[in-house]
Amino acid sequence: MFRVPKAELERRIGEVQGRLRSAGVDFAVIVQNTDLYYLTGTVQQGHLVLPAEGEPVFFVRRDVARAQCESELDRVVELTSLRALPEVVGRMGLPADGTVGMELDVVPVAMYRRYEAMWPAARFADCSDPIKEARSVKSAFELELIREASAQADHILETAAGLLHEGMTEIEMAAELEAVARKAGHQGIIRFRAFNMELYHGHLISGPDGAIGSHVDTPLAGRGLTPAVAQGAGWRTIGRNEPIVFDLSGAVHGYIADETRIFCVGSLPADLADAYERVREMEQAMVALVRPGITCGELYATAHNMAAEQGLGAYFMGAHPTQVSFVGHGVGLEIDELPFVARGSSRALEEGNVIALEPKLAFPERGAVGLENTWLVTADEAERLTNSPTEIWEV
Amino acid sequence: MFRVPKAELERRIGEVQGRLRSAGVDFAVIVQNTDLYYLTGTVQQGHLVLPAEGEPVFFVRRDVARAQCESELDRVVELTSLRALPEVVGRMGLPADGTVGMELDVVPVAMYRRYEAMWPAARFADCSDPIKEARSVKSAFELELIREASAQADHILETAAGLLHEGMTEIEMAAELEAVARKAGHQGIIRFRAFNMELYHGHLISGPDGAIGSHVDTPLAGRGLTPAVAQGAGWRTIGRNEPIVFDLSGAVHGYIADETRIFCVGSLPADLADAYERVREMEQAMVALVRPGITCGELYATAHNMAAEQGLGAYFMGAHPTQVSFVGHGVGLEIDELPFVARGSSRALEEGNVIALEPKLAFPERGAVGLENTWLVTADEAERLTNSPTEIWEV
Repeated sequence: MFRVPKAELERRIGEVQGRLRSAGVDFAVIVQNTDLYYLTGTVQQGHLVLPAEGEPVFFVRRDVARAQCESELDRVVELTSLRALPEVVGRMGLPADGTVGMELDVVPVAMYRRYEAMWPAARFADCSDPIKEARSVKSAFELELIREASAQADHILETAAGLLHEGMTEIEMAAELEAVARKAGHQGIIRFRAFNMELYHGHLISGPDGAIGSHVDTPLAGRGLTPAVAQGAGWRTIGRNEPIVFDLSGAVHGYIADETRIFCVGSLPADLADAYERVREMEQAMVALVRPGITCGELYATAHNMAAEQGLGAYFMGAHPTQVSFVGHGVGLEIDELPFVARGSSRALEEGNVIALEPKLAFPERGAVGLENTWLVTADEAERLTNSPTEIWEV
Repeated sequence: MFRVPKAELERRIGEVQGRLRSAGVDFAVIVQNTDLYYLTGTVQQGHLVLPAEGEPVFFVRRDVARAQCESELDRVVELTSLRALPEVVGRMGLPADGTVGMELDVVPVAMYRRYEAMWPAARFADCSDPIKEARSVKSAFELELIREASAQADHILETAAGLLHEGMTEIEMAAELEAVARKAGHQGIIRFRAFNMELYHGHLISGPDGAIGSHVDTPLAGRGLTPAVAQGAGWRTIGRNEPIVFDLSGAVHGYIADETRIFCVGSLPADLADAYERVREMEQAMVALVRPGITCGELYATAHNMAAEQGLGAYFMGAHPTQVSFVGHGVGLEIDELPFVARGSSRALEEGNVIALEPKLAFPERGAVGLENTWLVTADEAERLTNSPTEIWEV
């Protein structure tokens, strides 16, 4: 059975604990699925009580036997009553009047108030940044899983190429592609941390619908099957000589890879094919700059300026006025991890960051072209993890 | 294009407004996808400002043109800066020192604090109950969509029956079934309101793995592909003469139907076939009682007592000790709607409730049997919406 190794959990816990100490947090009470999985190796329901120093205890509501089997932590114990939490935390020697960290970026208010009432003398602090920062630098173990997810994404694209034909609807093609993904072990669920954000595998969008934006913070989104979801594949019949955006995910043991290619039944009109070459140049220009220390804002400006100089500014990263202000984002256990390769960001890349770079151009009424790969920031360059050919995939 | 009709939106808004007045809320600021869709007909990103009396305004960040197209509300306006919200709300004539409703069961703490800072003189109240209560009684329009979702679920089951064969893995079968669902227009995403809860179509689990529970609040969950997700289809090869649980969803324009059947390659051992007959009897006994006014606790007790009397108490609604304390739940735009058919609940059923009843028995090391249908509570009985045959599906 797959387990996150104990040494890996200990490394992660140490990384988060260092940041908790810097933030003046005495202990964190961690409850969200992604963070629990990161720090315990399981998503079984419970509270990971993580002192700023010393050994954590994972108090599990359900299923404790499964949590004990899935997690390599030493201390995984049952706790079926939430009310008992302050007492067992007290027995760990942790101060009831100290600073308690919680993931305040995701924990809902009503739930939070129950914890506030449990420690009336405590101060509460947001501990999501310490966790997100630790998660932004991937270990060799995590990289191996992201490589697997990347190979899965490559496999899905290559298999999809053999299934695409004129006259299919977007949703028919998406259904085939999703089935390929699942048979290859895609976990199905893609985790998005930000409130209200949802994603289902990715987006398969054809022709003019490729340029349609939506509520979700992605440059392209598509019409979707219904306004209730409002993104992804819709009912449109795929035509000849138009760009078809395949923006998809691989997902293995929680870890995500993000990859976009342009498919076409026939061949693209010259102007769109030309725009796609501009996108490839943007990618190359950004990738040539990737190294620890370069700021995310510099990478964004590089691609944005290339678009602007070619009169493509209004189409860059979505159609005006629903353009997004980033050209890339971290990936890992969530699709919206640190760092964000965003306009004006002074955040510097670090060795071990894994980022998806996705320069895209959306032309209203015409469609979208774009390219996305997942990259590792090494000590001195960018290493590509998704390895499908970057040409337009004509079938 | 599909749109939620204006009269339907007005009815919903009126229902919620009456409850806001009862709760002493001056206006609600509604932000969560499901609730936005319910009250506006679109999930585009923004704030629905809903006064306890008078016309609401939907302030949209992105995409406003799409929101205006998808929503039949009269007042859908752009608001790109969150900071401007108090001013535009003030211009609606709403008091900055009144009681502001927000969906505190889902809004994260860090996000909430930005709203608190915008109205420093206001009192904040949780307005999720008024919305959830309004949503628990379905209109004719909503019922029509749940009927479509139910027919979709029936279609998925019937098509799946033709694809199942010995030697497939669970994930292979699930991939086929999900593709059938998507080609039939299944929206992909299933919304779960409770924190940390996730679902991907449903669960396809075979043999002993059917009895495995997990973190998710469902009676059965399965092993899954990975501890990172820990539910649903896994890598197990489906064998002969063992129960295969198909617990799946239909989902059309946001509305969900929930249906479970037991499949078998060959035929079930006599004891499990017998247990399945007990499950059918539990369903029949509950359904015979369904009418407005009966309490959810009575329905639960009916099924639970039948299990207990037959010595099946330890297997009822999951294997001990990870049994859930409910035997059914409301369905609609979310899979965990009101009312919950839960142990000890004094809540009475109302005409227009739509509930999934799912008596299930989980036998450790053996597997699970169960039955789930989605039902409408009419003026005097239960009307079944999911209509697949309730026998064991032997292939």
